[in-house]
Amino acid sequence: MTVLIRGGTVVNADRAFRADVLCAGDKIVAVGDNLEAPPHATIVDAGGQYVMPGGIDTHTHMQLPFMGTVAADDFYTGTAAGLAGGTTTIMDFVIPDPRQRLLDAFHTWRGWAAKSAADYTFHVAVTWWDDSVHEDMGTLVREHGVNSFKHFMAYKNAIMADDETLIKSFRRALELGAIPTVHAENGELVYQLQRELLARGVRGPEAHPLSRPPEVEAEAANRAIAIAAVLGTPLYIVHVSCAESLDAIARARARGQRVYGEALAGHLVIDDSVYRNPDPAYARAHVMSPPFRSPQHQAALWQGLRGGNLHTTATDHCTFCAAQKAAGADAQGQEDFTRIPNGCGGVEERMMVVWDAGVNSGALSPCEFVAVTSANAARIFNIYPRKGLVAAGCDADLVVWDPLATRTLSAATQFSKGDVNVFEGRTVRGVPTHTLAAGKLVYVNGDLRAEQGAGRYVARPAFTGADAGGAAGAAGMHGAPATMAAIP
Amino acid sequence: MTVLIRGGTVVNADRAFRADVLCAGDKIVAVGDNLEAPPHATIVDAGGQYVMPGGIDTHTHMQLPFMGTVAADDFYTGTAAGLAGGTTTIMDFVIPDPRQRLLDAFHTWRGWAAKSAADYTFHVAVTWWDDSVHEDMGTLVREHGVNSFKHFMAYKNAIMADDETLIKSFRRALELGAIPTVHAENGELVYQLQRELLARGVRGPEAHPLSRPPEVEAEAANRAIAIAAVLGTPLYIVHVSCAESLDAIARARARGQRVYGEALAGHLVIDDSVYRNPDPAYARAHVMSPPFRSPQHQAALWQGLRGGNLHTTATDHCTFCAAQKAAGADAQGQEDFTRIPNGCGGVEERMMVVWDAGVNSGALSPCEFVAVTSANAARIFNIYPRKGLVAAGCDADLVVWDPLATRTLSAATQFSKGDVNVFEGRTVRGVPTHTLAAGKLVYVNGDLRAEQGAGRYVARPAFTGADAGGAAGAAGMHGAPATMAAIP
Amino acid sequence: MTVLIRGGTVVNADRAFRADVLCAGDKIVAVGDNLEAPPHATIVDAGGQYVMPGGIDTHTHMQLPFMGTVAADDFYTGTAAGLAGGTTTIMDFVIPDPRQRLLDAFHTWRGWAAKSAADYTFHVAVTWWDDSVHEDMGTLVREHGVNSFKHFMAYKNAIMADDETLIKSFRRALELGAIPTVHAENGELVYQLQRELLARGVRGPEAHPLSRPPEVEAEAANRAIAIAAVLGTPLYIVHVSCAESLDAIARARARGQRVYGEALAGHLVIDDSVYRNPDPAYARAHVMSPPFRSPQHQAALWQGLRGGNLHTTATDHCTFCAAQKAAGADAQGQEDFTRIPNGCGGVEERMMVVWDAGVNSGALSPCEFVAVTSANAARIFNIYPRKGLVAAGCDADLVVWDPLATRTLSAATQFSKGDVNVFEGRTVRGVPTHTLAAGKLVYVNGDLRAEQGAGRYVARPAFTGADAGGAAGAAGMHGAPATMAAIP
Amino acid sequence: MTVLIRGGTVVNADRAFRADVLCAGDKIVAVGDNLEAPPHATIVDAGGQYVMPGGIDTHTHMQLPFMGTVAADDFYTGTAAGLAGGTTTIMDFVIPDPRQRLLDAFHTWRGWAAKSAADYTFHVAVTWWDDSVHEDMGTLVREHGVNSFKHFMAYKNAIMADDETLIKSFRRALELGAIPTVHAENGELVYQLQRELLARGVRGPEAHPLSRPPEVEAEAANRAIAIAAVLGTPLYIVHVSCAESLDAIARARARGQRVYGEALAGHLVIDDSVYRNPDPAYARAHVMSPPFRSPQHQAALWQGLRGGNLHTTATDHCTFCAAQKAAGADAQGQEDFTRIPNGCGGVEERMMVVWDAGVNSGALSPCEFVAVTSANAARIFNIYPRKGLVAAGCDADLVVWDPLATRTLSAATQFSKGDVNVFEGRTVRGVPTHTLAAGKLVYVNGDLRAEQGAGRYVARPAFTGADAGGAAGAAGMHGAPATMAAIP
Repeated sequence: MTVLIRGGTVVNADRAFRADVLCAGDKIVAVGDNLEAPPHATIVDAGGQYVMPGGIDTHTHMQLPFMGTVAADDFYTGTAAGLAGGTTTIMDFVIPDPRQRLLDAFHTWRGWAAKSAADYTFHVAVTWWDDSVHEDMGTLVREHGVNSFKHFMAYKNAIMADDETLIKSFRRALELGAIPTVHAENGELVYQLQRELLARGVRGPEAHPLSRPPEVEAEAANRAIAIAAVLGTPLYIVHVSCAESLDAIARARARGQRVYGEALAGHLVIDDSVYRNPDPAYARAHVMSPPFRSPQHQAALWQGLRGGNLHTTATDHCTFCAAQKAAGADAQGQEDFTRIPNGCGGVEERMMVVWDAGVNSGALSPCEFVAVTSANAARIFNIYPRKGLVAAGCDADLVVWDPLATRTLSAATQFSKGDVNVFEGRTVRGVPTHTLAAGKLVYVNGDLRAEQGAGRYVARPAFTGADAGGAAGAAGMHGAPATMAAIP
Repeated sequence: MTVLIRGGTVVNADRAFRADVLCAGDKIVAVGDNLEAPPHATIVDAGGQYVMPGGIDTHTHMQLPFMGTVAADDFYTGTAAGLAGGTTTIMDFVIPDPRQRLLDAFHTWRGWAAKSAADYTFHVAVTWWDDSVHEDMGTLVREHGVNSFKHFMAYKNAIMADDETLIKSFRRALELGAIPTVHAENGELVYQLQRELLARGVRGPEAHPLSRPPEVEAEAANRAIAIAAVLGTPLYIVHVSCAESLDAIARARARGQRVYGEALAGHLVIDDSVYRNPDPAYARAHVMSPPFRSPQHQAALWQGLRGGNLHTTATDHCTFCAAQKAAGADAQGQEDFTRIPNGCGGVEERMMVVWDAGVNSGALSPCEFVAVTSANAARIFNIYPRKGLVAAGCDADLVVWDPLATRTLSAATQFSKGDVNVFEGRTVRGVPTHTLAAGKLVYVNGDLRAEQGAGRYVARPAFTGADAGGAAGAAGMHGAPATMAAIP
Repeated sequence: MTVLIRGGTVVNADRAFRADVLCAGDKIVAVGDNLEAPPHATIVDAGGQYVMPGGIDTHTHMQLPFMGTVAADDFYTGTAAGLAGGTTTIMDFVIPDPRQRLLDAFHTWRGWAAKSAADYTFHVAVTWWDDSVHEDMGTLVREHGVNSFKHFMAYKNAIMADDETLIKSFRRALELGAIPTVHAENGELVYQLQRELLARGVRGPEAHPLSRPPEVEAEAANRAIAIAAVLGTPLYIVHVSCAESLDAIARARARGQRVYGEALAGHLVIDDSVYRNPDPAYARAHVMSPPFRSPQHQAALWQGLRGGNLHTTATDHCTFCAAQKAAGADAQGQEDFTRIPNGCGGVEERMMVVWDAGVNSGALSPCEFVAVTSANAARIFNIYPRKGLVAAGCDADLVVWDPLATRTLSAATQFSKGDVNVFEGRTVRGVPTHTLAAGKLVYVNGDLRAEQGAGRYVARPAFTGADAGGAAGAAGMHGAPATMAAIP
Repeated sequence: MTVLIRGGTVVNADRAFRADVLCAGDKIVAVGDNLEAPPHATIVDAGGQYVMPGGIDTHTHMQLPFMGTVAADDFYTGTAAGLAGGTTTIMDFVIPDPRQRLLDAFHTWRGWAAKSAADYTFHVAVTWWDDSVHEDMGTLVREHGVNSFKHFMAYKNAIMADDETLIKSFRRALELGAIPTVHAENGELVYQLQRELLARGVRGPEAHPLSRPPEVEAEAANRAIAIAAVLGTPLYIVHVSCAESLDAIARARARGQRVYGEALAGHLVIDDSVYRNPDPAYARAHVMSPPFRSPQHQAALWQGLRGGNLHTTATDHCTFCAAQKAAGADAQGQEDFTRIPNGCGGVEERMMVVWDAGVNSGALSPCEFVAVTSANAARIFNIYPRKGLVAAGCDADLVVWDPLATRTLSAATQFSKGDVNVFEGRTVRGVPTHTLAAGKLVYVNGDLRAEQGAGRYVARPAFTGADAGGAAGAAGMHGAPATMAAIP
């Protein structure tokens, strides 16, 4: 398929400029003024619109088996929903059970993901430690294109990594040229607070945020940062939700440490009043971890994106329908908020929500929008400039964006599965009109043409210079040690 | 002149990659693999070397009339020295006398600069205020390509701007789409401390840093940041020299404020022991403001560059020979440190010093080196991607960099005029082998081919979207208001 | 008069203990268990109550000529109102006109204050500078018991002190063993914002807080702290109203600097919604500087008191009746918020408000209450232990406090003059039942027995060890230089 | 014994004043001017000297069984050495083995301590958790006068408390009105770094500080603070040694949290160059945890004491002779720094070192000296005003201090056992001439009259108001919850 996008303004992270964009096969082949349309090319009129790199959602959980159920969106429906919102690549998570071989889990997830409509790649979680984990990390980096490992500091008695595991895994990641990432919440504090709240009879969804106050998150963020500082590894902190965590990141970065932070679209615009909604189903629908926070934390997150202490936006897309969320009460109506499946959606809405709340408000420029929705993710996870850039030679993953068009977000109209939309009723200005994925027009003005299985697994090379092509690799990323270089 | 640079690794701020670079006329015309050499092209073998955007020194004072004398390097010798060190553009300062029309001063400086061997552009200082200043600022932005205005918060009874001037000028700059910059030192404190030191008989160059302690700088930085915050303007702080100023910037950026910081090559590697040297000539040679600081401040500055709170490197190049510096004592040998002309060199050495101390130590990656020596400056001052990027269509201002070669810096071998080199005796690893300016090979392995008058005045457009080409301008810079977008 | 207070719990800043307190003449003569009542002693039954040092309000402006009118409470009514609220000493301000001799102004205020019903003392403002100011500061310290000098960084074109004055006065204060204090607001920014708001037609009281945002206050606080740091003087910052100023203090204290902060009762409990009240008279009644702030700032102030970064509570008591406040609009109803006399009351309510919002909430212990309402003020301003302590030999200035009794604050029932009470309708728990001033029962369960002229001028010795009695003086206060020692 | 101390200047934390002090039995019975000497009273001439509360060393380990050996000073020699230095009370630690009942350990330590020459009291360590620990904590608080519990966050595989234990113990302490204390180092990081250093062949004492960098300490401090914040408990952090830990405390205190910090005399004046001494015996003699730090950390600790973020000074007195320290190498000379018994002395030198480096330098006033060597400790651990104050009714624990006399500290002249003195050769100005303990002159101008068994166990009441005497208890301490109130 050959597509010529005409008359738009190309927006990259570093600059915006008027140019046409020509795509052939799965690549961008030219970016320039007044490009000639090849024969049979499909012409997209981007007049008055922005042409941007397709979004990268660094944090999704499609068809995740979790808390006794399975997330509603599978890799097909989830990636398709993403395409409808301009997101052309997802980064999902392989989460081995404790004692399960990492490679086994990796292959299981690879199998599930084969049906994806958009490109995908995996962070692999380190949920336990023994020599096989050490070995499998090496195999994953060297043979399977994994360059990031995730650590849950929460979920005691399940997938929580203790300090010993964190230290050993961080060090192994450094050795391999991979970047450690953490879900930062002190799982022991969460657990004890949960026990206590239940014991005191505070059992409904309103208890969820009480069991995970900001200090619980900030403690874990600070601890992971300290471990990374001592070992000399870079660090990526997923779903930073509160001012206190952000402050830990800002302090570390001010000391020159390579720490990156991710904000979720939901945390940026939804506040914790949802948990006090009198309708328990509504409140449960918003149960995710970390929880939504008070408005002052949202303001802090925007400051973080703007000031360079947060780098990416994601969703933690992990949808459960009302029936699944109802596990938070038993047949007799006895509530137990710790049994509510944790998770909310967003892969479809993220870019619109971030544009509307961020760019329209003046908090972010269009260039910064591209940085935090796509380019920074590509750079941090070493798939730049294949992803995250509009330039000849890059993947033809593009979104054509109409800054004046509006859309009202709703479960009733979403492509994502499920009966809930945490952005329900929000009208956004600035929406995708066309999405190209691997050179194909997969979304055109409401018409979603997602194709099951069209998505490709994206291997991500390690940051080690020697393996990754010499000076190019060396200069590309996190800066320390010699094989990594910082963004943004 | 057509030049093909073959076999090197192109380093931009966002990535590094193996590619040849073809220049024709004054532009880069192609960047790619295995480019064919056009007939008669000069071939530069860049094997094992980096090909980077020519350096931009954001802070020089060529042939500045200052403190009763004139800086030794004129626009020709100074820019030529820059070319020998890989710097292809300087940003100098027009400094009107109080009550002098800004436009008059601007034309004076333009005249002096016509002899430049490299491209140049001007910050214009606002040293006083009346309606004519308001008017001339408009003319300079709209008709003369000035988009930055400088304010000296020091130098009482001379060019110091008081708060009223700062406020009125910052606001005017915002209106015009220009960025205010400040020399941050509390001039009143400096003045009172100078009077007191002299009165107490502490009169030699060792008194210079005592009259300008870090708090004096941090106070002014904080004040300028506060004014910018209240008015909603971006702000660029020149020659940040101490941890306390940097901390003021970091705090502001963490709040999402658009504040940029510049570090000088000298401040990054020279410490304040120079002022205690028993040879007064040696000590005087190092008198500049802010002064060199203790080693802990140097460490902080590197952290600032690495962590994104400092953005550019410059030199404040303003050389005076020993005879000029001798004004610090009268014929009878009575010392008065306040009469020593303030200024040191560096335009020639900056890139080597920053590479050697920054990249070789692992503090910065090569991409970050490009960011802080060139690309960020181009973006902040709105000449990107004409400058600061190696890509087709950009100015053919390039430096070919041999990371293994060494050079020992010395007044004896420098191209810069004068009998002093503040980096005297320092052996650096990582030096330019070739410099291209406007497509011409102006420096080749020690052979400086600088041509008087070859440099061009670089007009810098305002950040106002409408005037500057629509969305491109709008998306390019400081983000707030709608016409500016943030870097890096 | 001999008074025995029986059966209460004495609360000092360092501890609380069951004891009787015997006062004879104007002194406490015994504190102990089961004291014998002397013949003819008046017995106060303090069972179930606290016996605390009388409050010290560090910031009042009785009968101040200001903005074309005179504050409604004079030294008699104002101090009497204070006694009704348990405050037995006020610290008022001598504010010379620019060019007026400090001594002349001092004598004027001394004359006005002769009618006081409670003890009083004066900070003297330095509103301009010449040799006579230098000389009068010396005379005031050495001969008139003044050990603190105030500097207004706001009120341009009136009493604003520029940096030169601040520096010279701070240095002189250091020389004399006096402590500088500042009203921290950048007067130039306030002035420019006022001009702009008026020009834009935002002219009512709602414009007042817009002309004095937190950054304006924080800038000035930071500047004064920097000057004090450079000169080595202690510093006291009056009416800290916002998180940003407090942060400047916290940073300085963490560096070991001797900086003290004062919070006003009003700022602790009233928020800025008052300025958006549709009744302009109501809004005007709350116009004071700094203005009331949003609730997050109140939370910060309580944290400051609790964490030791704020040290005293005061009121800036300066009452104007509605007719005076009406100067904010002319006869034609054209509003000009810059003409509204700045000031609110509080001398009567402060201790009740701080107890109710502070102690009842658990934010402060009773000991901390004594520290922030009395003892710290006495120590910072060198009248401890004469004031601020319940012990034999101290002034018999006491308040007997019933922690269970309630009172509803209202203009209708206040002793203070005027038709406004900014705490109108607030019901507090914890109120004085008895106040002793100089050994006399001046308030008993609603019966105010204030006597005009009974108050005494309190001379405050300088902090210089040699002049002030050797080691005692040396060890008493701000620690640096050798003549001062820190609290708390 | 009746002792009249005549002519001195009494220094308390809140003020200094000329007064005589009369002691009879074990109490101070009068403080005042020109006290009459009772018949047979011993007269101490304190002319030109200070009379201060005897020192409280909050952190000692007498005859501690540790790392395979036993600390050299037993409770007799250690407390006697303390008396020679003006310290009249020590707070030692009961450290149960994991699985040992707390009460059993407590009784063991009580037995050992019976020989003490000075008063003593115990923090009890919680090194493991089960229901018996919960129960014994209650018994210790209610029946044995223990109000503080210690938690080692370091020493993996030995006495390290994990987060679950910290949380459960902190909560239990809150319930009981006791204060948790922590040794803040991340034991897992220490352990992994030790393994790695040994594996890399870095085995001598120079490896000790490398295995415990500041981040390791700061992480743990921050974690303990977070847990305390979430649970609402106060927290006391022992031996704060670095700027990063101190910063965690300052941040918490600025948020109003009740966190207290202790600095060791050694950390205040000794730097980490000792570990690079070519004599391994010298280096080993300085092995303690946390280790000595670089000079900038010392500067930070003084700022902390001065600015109110650190509250007490102690020693961690735990002496080992050279033969014991030699365990750091085996018979073949193979080194293993992890086997060097951790510990250094100081109980004898602390007050002189803090005075000399703190008061003589102007960093601290004499009042502050009393605060950080005695009064604050008494208040934080609820034995004030029995200890920590010079006033009638208080224990007659006093030190008469000659600010002009000097002493050279040395192992050759120390009373403490062992062949090492980490302050060797330091000449201090400001030394005790007389020490009174429980009313007896136990040290007079070099003549140590310590009596084995004369020391008494000091029971410390819980902070719960109800149990501790009503309002007095309520108002006494940490402020939160209602039963505690803050110092200083």
